[in-house]
Amino acid sequence: MRPSGRAPDQMRPIAIETAFTIHAEGSVLVAFGNTKVLVTASVEEKVPPFLRGKGQGWVTAEYGMLPRATHTRGSREAAKGKQSGRTQEIQRLIGRSLRAVVDMKKLGERQIVIDCDVIQADGGTRTASISGAWVALRLAVDKLLEAKAIAEDPIEDRVAAISCGMYQGTPVLDLDYDEDSNAEADGNFVLTGKGQIVEVQASAEGATYDEEGLLRLLRLARIGCGEIFAAQAKAVGR
Amino acid sequence: MRPSGRAPDQMRPIAIETAFTIHAEGSVLVAFGNTKVLVTASVEEKVPPFLRGKGQGWVTAEYGMLPRATHTRGSREAAKGKQSGRTQEIQRLIGRSLRAVVDMKKLGERQIVIDCDVIQADGGTRTASISGAWVALRLAVDKLLEAKAIAEDPIEDRVAAISCGMYQGTPVLDLDYDEDSNAEADGNFVLTGKGQIVEVQASAEGATYDEEGLLRLLRLARIGCGEIFAAQAKAVGR
Amino acid sequence: MRPSGRAPDQMRPIAIETAFTIHAEGSVLVAFGNTKVLVTASVEEKVPPFLRGKGQGWVTAEYGMLPRATHTRGSREAAKGKQSGRTQEIQRLIGRSLRAVVDMKKLGERQIVIDCDVIQADGGTRTASISGAWVALRLAVDKLLEAKAIAEDPIEDRVAAISCGMYQGTPVLDLDYDEDSNAEADGNFVLTGKGQIVEVQASAEGATYDEEGLLRLLRLARIGCGEIFAAQAKAVGR
Amino acid sequence: MRPSGRAPDQMRPIAIETAFTIHAEGSVLVAFGNTKVLVTASVEEKVPPFLRGKGQGWVTAEYGMLPRATHTRGSREAAKGKQSGRTQEIQRLIGRSLRAVVDMKKLGERQIVIDCDVIQADGGTRTASISGAWVALRLAVDKLLEAKAIAEDPIEDRVAAISCGMYQGTPVLDLDYDEDSNAEADGNFVLTGKGQIVEVQASAEGATYDEEGLLRLLRLARIGCGEIFAAQAKAVGR
Amino acid sequence: MRPSGRAPDQMRPIAIETAFTIHAEGSVLVAFGNTKVLVTASVEEKVPPFLRGKGQGWVTAEYGMLPRATHTRGSREAAKGKQSGRTQEIQRLIGRSLRAVVDMKKLGERQIVIDCDVIQADGGTRTASISGAWVALRLAVDKLLEAKAIAEDPIEDRVAAISCGMYQGTPVLDLDYDEDSNAEADGNFVLTGKGQIVEVQASAEGATYDEEGLLRLLRLARIGCGEIFAAQAKAVGR
Amino acid sequence: MRPSGRAPDQMRPIAIETAFTIHAEGSVLVAFGNTKVLVTASVEEKVPPFLRGKGQGWVTAEYGMLPRATHTRGSREAAKGKQSGRTQEIQRLIGRSLRAVVDMKKLGERQIVIDCDVIQADGGTRTASISGAWVALRLAVDKLLEAKAIAEDPIEDRVAAISCGMYQGTPVLDLDYDEDSNAEADGNFVLTGKGQIVEVQASAEGATYDEEGLLRLLRLARIGCGEIFAAQAKAVGR
Repeated sequence: MRPSGRAPDQMRPIAIETAFTIHAEGSVLVAFGNTKVLVTASVEEKVPPFLRGKGQGWVTAEYGMLPRATHTRGSREAAKGKQSGRTQEIQRLIGRSLRAVVDMKKLGERQIVIDCDVIQADGGTRTASISGAWVALRLAVDKLLEAKAIAEDPIEDRVAAISCGMYQGTPVLDLDYDEDSNAEADGNFVLTGKGQIVEVQASAEGATYDEEGLLRLLRLARIGCGEIFAAQAKAVGR
Repeated sequence: MRPSGRAPDQMRPIAIETAFTIHAEGSVLVAFGNTKVLVTASVEEKVPPFLRGKGQGWVTAEYGMLPRATHTRGSREAAKGKQSGRTQEIQRLIGRSLRAVVDMKKLGERQIVIDCDVIQADGGTRTASISGAWVALRLAVDKLLEAKAIAEDPIEDRVAAISCGMYQGTPVLDLDYDEDSNAEADGNFVLTGKGQIVEVQASAEGATYDEEGLLRLLRLARIGCGEIFAAQAKAVGR
Repeated sequence: MRPSGRAPDQMRPIAIETAFTIHAEGSVLVAFGNTKVLVTASVEEKVPPFLRGKGQGWVTAEYGMLPRATHTRGSREAAKGKQSGRTQEIQRLIGRSLRAVVDMKKLGERQIVIDCDVIQADGGTRTASISGAWVALRLAVDKLLEAKAIAEDPIEDRVAAISCGMYQGTPVLDLDYDEDSNAEADGNFVLTGKGQIVEVQASAEGATYDEEGLLRLLRLARIGCGEIFAAQAKAVGR
Repeated sequence: MRPSGRAPDQMRPIAIETAFTIHAEGSVLVAFGNTKVLVTASVEEKVPPFLRGKGQGWVTAEYGMLPRATHTRGSREAAKGKQSGRTQEIQRLIGRSLRAVVDMKKLGERQIVIDCDVIQADGGTRTASISGAWVALRLAVDKLLEAKAIAEDPIEDRVAAISCGMYQGTPVLDLDYDEDSNAEADGNFVLTGKGQIVEVQASAEGATYDEEGLLRLLRLARIGCGEIFAAQAKAVGR
Repeated sequence: MRPSGRAPDQMRPIAIETAFTIHAEGSVLVAFGNTKVLVTASVEEKVPPFLRGKGQGWVTAEYGMLPRATHTRGSREAAKGKQSGRTQEIQRLIGRSLRAVVDMKKLGERQIVIDCDVIQADGGTRTASISGAWVALRLAVDKLLEAKAIAEDPIEDRVAAISCGMYQGTPVLDLDYDEDSNAEADGNFVLTGKGQIVEVQASAEGATYDEEGLLRLLRLARIGCGEIFAAQAKAVGR
Repeated sequence: MRPSGRAPDQMRPIAIETAFTIHAEGSVLVAFGNTKVLVTASVEEKVPPFLRGKGQGWVTAEYGMLPRATHTRGSREAAKGKQSGRTQEIQRLIGRSLRAVVDMKKLGERQIVIDCDVIQADGGTRTASISGAWVALRLAVDKLLEAKAIAEDPIEDRVAAISCGMYQGTPVLDLDYDEDSNAEADGNFVLTGKGQIVEVQASAEGATYDEEGLLRLLRLARIGCGEIFAAQAKAVGR
């Protein structure tokens, strides 16, 4: 029995609110149950130094958590003067996940910076960030296409992400905080709209697992990503 | 004529949404027109080192701006590894403003940390932060009173803040970004419910001003704070 | 009764010693009683990145306090690896105050950096810094004029600053440390030679104050700045 | 055809030299072909703050790369003043991998710190680090057992790690640098001696992959880890 | 011929002004010609962590240079966020030099912190700092003796320091900036009142030197330290 | 009697292994008894900003110690976020020592970066670093000569370094850790192949010393450097 009463393959309600803020080229408030992340996509007409003059673009991401997004207040990374290893790990994952579906040549010499800021946390903030980031990216690229700044759509596929894990011996989908902190194993799966794998990160926490366990988590992830793709499609209107 | 078409003494619409997030003891989304700040109040059962064992509490504040809260993306302070001088100046002001109306003895040996994170910026983020922070603080203290953790209410008065400035020679109330970046003078006023001054910070930008100018700004601030006190009262239900 | 025995509107003795060090284009040791600040103005033939190619100059300031300028030793900011919020707040105020009376076009594409280092502290270090900085700036600009590096004097007016506060219910001028640490309210006033206001920063410490209180502090500030302008004039020889 | 001429399921030669340095409780130079990592295990009779008084131990890891371990010199993290996101990601992975096979209660209130310093890099430094770290940990724990500092062996299983990837459409085992920088997909697999999965991190680089691809990489990883377990057993003499 | 016209063994005028600032237990402005350093000694009734409970004291030093102490403005270390290698090297040397003549047991469990801040630089700032620091230390210890906080004088000897170097083939004493920046070799010598060596740091700059060269520099240093000891004696009144 | 049983003028066995790693232009593992340092020389076709366009090259050095190179684990400088004063002092000494024998004009506009990483420490790590660094530099320059990237050999002489000290009243050569931590005085001597002095750094630790003491240490250093020059010659094959 899951603490939330959900079935093992049952997602939390997904909400994707676009245009949540007014300045960003793409702006999304994405919620998976009580996990809420504000994601913005900012178009910058420059690329990082290692890409200058190479005729291609870049997509990168930054991640942060508001100090009181969690049950007890965490210290503010800006005040501590550095980002934690966890933060850096997550923002690298978000960037890689999006780049896997973007043709950098078609994007042209510009950078899209994705900012994922967790307003409220209840497990699954990195996967909610990726799922919302694709929508913010899609909206920002649509503006570039409308403005004819780019000729061809550089986004080749959709991307969504979800966490699955072993909870009291059962594989469950979309872990919330209560489950996440007690799971025996915990995996984050990033999948494309065509069903391909972009990234798997699956860790034993209390107990190691076997190949069959990995596959069962992956199959749950497919179910979850299917729902996310539907929510993304609705949010971007196609 | 103001860019927004407002009258010189006309505020932007104020919205204060309480319980915007679930974990914090006090949580408020405060909006002054397009300026939106998420403010949380977190109760911690400890005090900073310089107050240990002195039988009194503390109220402090931190401030941040999401990278794309603004027209063009600003760099993330956590990634840069330090808070800007502007950020530190603002968070010190917020803390001082709240402490001016709190009896630290009555609060007992605990700290309330106010986090003000700007979701969307259109001028006046520091004054919106102070005005919202008082509501978050009020809500957090109410919980302590209900839980009988403290016996007497430590909050002695209300506090609100607003910016006023000289725009094209006219004193105007509640500057938005367009006005703020072109004002000849710019002042932030923090007032109590009883009409006392907590803090005045008024700077010449393009032109210096005289005593009469200062008083005209202060009088506008009184009008503005009156509206804010009404919105605060409605938000906290009394 | 003030701890120093001074009358409420009585300043401490002001001393401004020019050419205190030999390398800087402008160098001043300014003393307000026991508060002593070494101020230098350094002319640099370049401007910050945001002004490059815009045909104008810049004036900026940095502030520091020697570790044992105070009663008990404070830690060295260079050793701690960051400047405190207080330091940043002060150096931003000094820079703004000077820029209010400088025509940046006339200065040309160069920067004048003001360094204010507190040798000995007894209250009022930021206002002494501003008052001395104007002299150092004046001396450095005079050299530029003599060398015909600039054609027209870019300094449009004098600037001086003084603190006033409510001490045991009485408005007093030029607070020393004993008064500053016990004042009910404390204000820093930056005025021009023509009597205009450049900046007011007035904070309630122990008690809030009203409009009349603010005006009484401002009037004391006018008296104090009058004395400072006389001392500045004598120091620069006109 | 692999650049090295190896068969798809062929590992590079593995060498594990124990007692490479004299001070550490466990010290290992581990080589996978040209990748060489110096791993030490240091026993400290204290635990991190979050575990104090809980009657259990901790195992943690730090990772670094000497500036000229690589083809072109990289900057020294100590001189830059921070560890990169990649470094932090790797050292977190090493720590998690080891903790998965250690019973922290049996270890007692002490910490074992694993330092993995890459002397020479040619791909696979993180997996070499994990594989060598288990040996260093085993040696350090053996000393604790011999000294009767702990009563029961806290190490419950072996752990090894290897990278596999899709190179020119073929799944290959133990990627070297030439392959790693051109692989379409790249996975790091951490397995226990009993064949359980501790961690899978598999990322699409140039092309996404499917479930069958993931399983083929996992099966190659089993082959590789088998060889590593044999080399570990020889190194620790059992 | 030396740029200053001095004879090879001629020092610059030495001035040691005590009680230059009022708060520190010892306060000295020391000048060697145009090199001026403000040195304070602060007594703290605590010791660094590594000495707690060991029944002995400590003497340590910090060094800084005001940004415009030099011909062209240097950046402020507090603003850059770190002390340079040169600064750290110098402050370590000052601390070692003083500790060589202090009996830490007699000092008791307290720390004396020496702050050396260069007001104006013209070569030899580190040796001026050491020479002035001994005076500041002497004054601070005298206060402890007068207050009977310590029973026996912990200062066992005097310490002075001077730089010598090879300038255009000639050994010269007390290098100023013009000489220092063109010297073939440059040495800093720290000597005790009894003529013993505390520290020698002699570096080839443009040309290496031989044993005879080292001895000639050392003999010049003895002459210079003799003058400094006389000035120190006069400053402390014995 | 020395703890190691060595005669006062007896060095530890010296071993210099070239080509220890494969990527660097010069790579050396240098051992003085149990002290082992990995030194690499990296050729970079650029110079630091202060030398751009001046038609000359540069040689610089960085130094680090692996956390468990020592008896008890030291904290990792990269994790602490800064290099210690000791580290910076040492790397500055290494750079100066090498530059003393290199003609920067002949090197051309390129930089050679020396990295000295202590694998195992038993006293004398800075002098072993310098002695090994000369070999790594020699090897890297030989490659430039072979490739005809430079026309004339910029290395004008050999350089070696050794520590000597007063141990229980006797001058001894090549201090190991046991001696170093108990020596009354401790000196590092950097000499050229022609017998000239590059640098002397001699500090009193427990007792000051006199001129005769300094000369006795210097004479021991000559003996030691003679042995090092022989080992260097053998390592570079001439």
